[in-house]
Amino acid sequence: MLFKVEMKVNIPHDMPADVVADIKAREKAYAQDLQEKGKWRHLWRVAGSYANVSIFDVEDNAELQDLVGNLPLFPYMDITVAPLCRHPSSIHEDDR
Amino acid sequence: MLFKVEMKVNIPHDMPADVVADIKAREKAYAQDLQEKGKWRHLWRVAGSYANVSIFDVEDNAELQDLVGNLPLFPYMDITVAPLCRHPSSIHEDDR
Amino acid sequence: MLFKVEMKVNIPHDMPADVVADIKAREKAYAQDLQEKGKWRHLWRVAGSYANVSIFDVEDNAELQDLVGNLPLFPYMDITVAPLCRHPSSIHEDDR
Amino acid sequence: MLFKVEMKVNIPHDMPADVVADIKAREKAYAQDLQEKGKWRHLWRVAGSYANVSIFDVEDNAELQDLVGNLPLFPYMDITVAPLCRHPSSIHEDDR
Amino acid sequence: MLFKVEMKVNIPHDMPADVVADIKAREKAYAQDLQEKGKWRHLWRVAGSYANVSIFDVEDNAELQDLVGNLPLFPYMDITVAPLCRHPSSIHEDDR
Amino acid sequence: MLFKVEMKVNIPHDMPADVVADIKAREKAYAQDLQEKGKWRHLWRVAGSYANVSIFDVEDNAELQDLVGNLPLFPYMDITVAPLCRHPSSIHEDDR
Amino acid sequence: MLFKVEMKVNIPHDMPADVVADIKAREKAYAQDLQEKGKWRHLWRVAGSYANVSIFDVEDNAELQDLVGNLPLFPYMDITVAPLCRHPSSIHEDDR
Amino acid sequence: MLFKVEMKVNIPHDMPADVVADIKAREKAYAQDLQEKGKWRHLWRVAGSYANVSIFDVEDNAELQDLVGNLPLFPYMDITVAPLCRHPSSIHEDDR
Amino acid sequence: MLFKVEMKVNIPHDMPADVVADIKAREKAYAQDLQEKGKWRHLWRVAGSYANVSIFDVEDNAELQDLVGNLPLFPYMDITVAPLCRHPSSIHEDDR
Amino acid sequence: MLFKVEMKVNIPHDMPADVVADIKAREKAYAQDLQEKGKWRHLWRVAGSYANVSIFDVEDNAELQDLVGNLPLFPYMDITVAPLCRHPSSIHEDDR
Repeated sequence: MLFKVEMKVNIPHDMPADVVADIKAREKAYAQDLQEKGKWRHLWRVAGSYANVSIFDVEDNAELQDLVGNLPLFPYMDITVAPLCRHPSSIHEDDR
Repeated sequence: MLFKVEMKVNIPHDMPADVVADIKAREKAYAQDLQEKGKWRHLWRVAGSYANVSIFDVEDNAELQDLVGNLPLFPYMDITVAPLCRHPSSIHEDDR
Repeated sequence: MLFKVEMKVNIPHDMPADVVADIKAREKAYAQDLQEKGKWRHLWRVAGSYANVSIFDVEDNAELQDLVGNLPLFPYMDITVAPLCRHPSSIHEDDR
Repeated sequence: MLFKVEMKVNIPHDMPADVVADIKAREKAYAQDLQEKGKWRHLWRVAGSYANVSIFDVEDNAELQDLVGNLPLFPYMDITVAPLCRHPSSIHEDDR
Repeated sequence: MLFKVEMKVNIPHDMPADVVADIKAREKAYAQDLQEKGKWRHLWRVAGSYANVSIFDVEDNAELQDLVGNLPLFPYMDITVAPLCRHPSSIHEDDR
Repeated sequence: MLFKVEMKVNIPHDMPADVVADIKAREKAYAQDLQEKGKWRHLWRVAGSYANVSIFDVEDNAELQDLVGNLPLFPYMDITVAPLCRHPSSIHEDDR
Repeated sequence: MLFKVEMKVNIPHDMPADVVADIKAREKAYAQDLQEKGKWRHLWRVAGSYANVSIFDVEDNAELQDLVGNLPLFPYMDITVAPLCRHPSSIHEDDR
Repeated sequence: MLFKVEMKVNIPHDMPADVVADIKAREKAYAQDLQEKGKWRHLWRVAGSYANVSIFDVEDNAELQDLVGNLPLFPYMDITVAPLCRHPSSIHEDDR
Repeated sequence: MLFKVEMKVNIPHDMPADVVADIKAREKAYAQDLQEKGKWRHLWRVAGSYANVSIFDVEDNAELQDLVGNLPLFPYMDITVAPLCRHPSSIHEDDR
Repeated sequence: MLFKVEMKVNIPHDMPADVVADIKAREKAYAQDLQEKGKWRHLWRVAGSYANVSIFDVEDNAELQDLVGNLPLFPYMDITVAPLCRHPSSIHEDDR
């Protein structure tokens, strides 16, 4: 089951550089692990901003909350979620 | 080159049913043709709304304008566009 | 799987009264059928407005789209959707 | 008498961890006490966000203010309130 | 129990003048009846607009919905509602 | 001459508790003094929020500015103002 | 007593040309009469839009409502009002 | 003197096709005439929308109003205007 | 050439009192100097807020930027600008 | 390929003056270098604000992200991006 997740990062300007670097490193490792597991199917940078557009593929709403809520950058992001499903004009049975 | 395109359909309530049916049929054929050509890479319904989230794969901004501006439903949709590119945490060289 | 669905009704003022009455009657029957089936678990009027707050209980996003998209009033409503899941402070294992 | 209450938590990033932990523990105990008393009838997490959708069941507006205003997280939340009542299409006499 | 109710009137420009006049006459009679009954405690025009600020005094949310939903101008107004209660700095036990 | 004034309080979370307590005490004394003088005719809490709805009765715009601008909490509030006057459907010659 | 009044004109596109011309002629005569009486002290076009910024000089809120509510274009305008008073840095005792 | 002007076109869906065609033809001729005169220095389509971003080069605000207000599509566009001037980091003395 | 300039002041609550006092004193002197020179033609307080409505009279956009950008409070204000010109219904050739 | 990029600068008020000066100096050098390379084709100040309107000329979305994301002021700016292309009414084959 797919969800579009958009994340806009707002790191406080007075956070120490090493703390920021640590969070970002953990975020990257976490994101790559979820991609390899097929849970985070697409991850694109929005050009010109510190933001991304993502497609998550989860069992249910609870798993979405679990995966998104554990993002190391979660406390520093504005996040919007939209549930997706098959479009009647799609040529794919299972567009993921 | 990828763009996220979100379309929200607002068909005027007093448009004759046969006109609506014709526009929708042409929209579907147009959308399926672009998907088969690889230009319209993803097309998802947003659950609970008359809207979609799409990923277009075009040569440049001019082609995006050409493809979107010729949608049969174009005059009846609110459309937002975001340019996408590779995210530094993506595990894919070319996530399309 | 639960979703909060909020619906705000905007019936065009020039729609003939009998057409409005027919749509409303079908909407009511449809809503009561889904409630009896357990799909539409809660349905409340927002006091002072032509709007409701609803809780849907569905298998997945596709079923949500199917149920909401077939509402007779669907073309005349502004609808917002939020995916819900268990809150860690809830005293219920399965709050529905 | 029911109210929908939506709460979005915004804890300041520079609040000491032990202060945060204390507030959250008191919030959880407070929430569970109100649920057991039947005042806080539903409490759901909005998937993908640090937010909840709640249904309160109170005597009047004054009790709503008393219960919500004493939430330990109250100073750190954006809260919206909507008064609810029976929907004419509801199959329940008393949907709580 | 008090509610602030704000109403902004948007009468369609192509509604026949006699229909408008009839609705307005019924609205005025209805408003004056509720004021005399003590249900509509205050009614002020917002200077420079076709809008009002009102204070309703009702038994519960259901009565608010009943009174507001039966306004003859109800289908042609944007309405916002806020539940009110005693302010701790008020010098009145029962400010109505 | 009446004005609706809505105030939403946003006290900075890092303001020392004794400073906050002092400002609130002065705010309360100031509010009660203006109520006793008949300048601050109504003061209601908006249930579920740190906000109020007030009705001021002043000589002119300058007095409104003088009274509101001297609120001890003035620097920490979002304030909106609407000029009010007699509504043609009011049953009161002088609804205050 | 001064008020800033901003008016944005939205004439329905299907209003007959002679009706529009008549309303505009009456609006112009009305506006010029109020200017000559000193009630409408300033009237500027916002460059690039069908909108104006105006300064009204009235006895009280009721007169503002009377003057603005009788504008021939009143039903076709979005209007916002702000009460003005002397600024402490103004070099004029009575800046009108 | 430069202004950024953004125009979003909203042609009513029930306007006869020949009327639309005539307005568009006059708009195009008007736009090209102003470009040739150097008044309309840049004109770009926003990809994926019926909108443009333009740079006007005028003597003063009055000329801007004159040029924009006479656009054949003026009654059917949402227009926003921003005054521009030399940026201190520009390498051009006169960037037009 | 006239511009409406609206300024809303947001002084950070943790700025030392003497720094605030110094900035305000310089702002006042600067504002009065520009008024005496005829550049800042009108300056009104918006009643009930820490905001003003101003009319600037400048040679061109560059001078507007120069005058506004050098306001001592400039870094602490939300500022909106609208270019003004003669209104066709104005009775003044040069309403300043 | 052109993009309109709008940047609004929000430097934290408690950033040390020398840090601010350093960032601004690097921003200016960076902006001038990109202008000389033809990548940053236009750069205008929005009169009355700490903001600019820019036109970037890039190979693709990835280059836009690279150029904008490396702006020294990037973490302190609100940035909006719009993809541009040739307008059918433009008299220029290649309006840059």
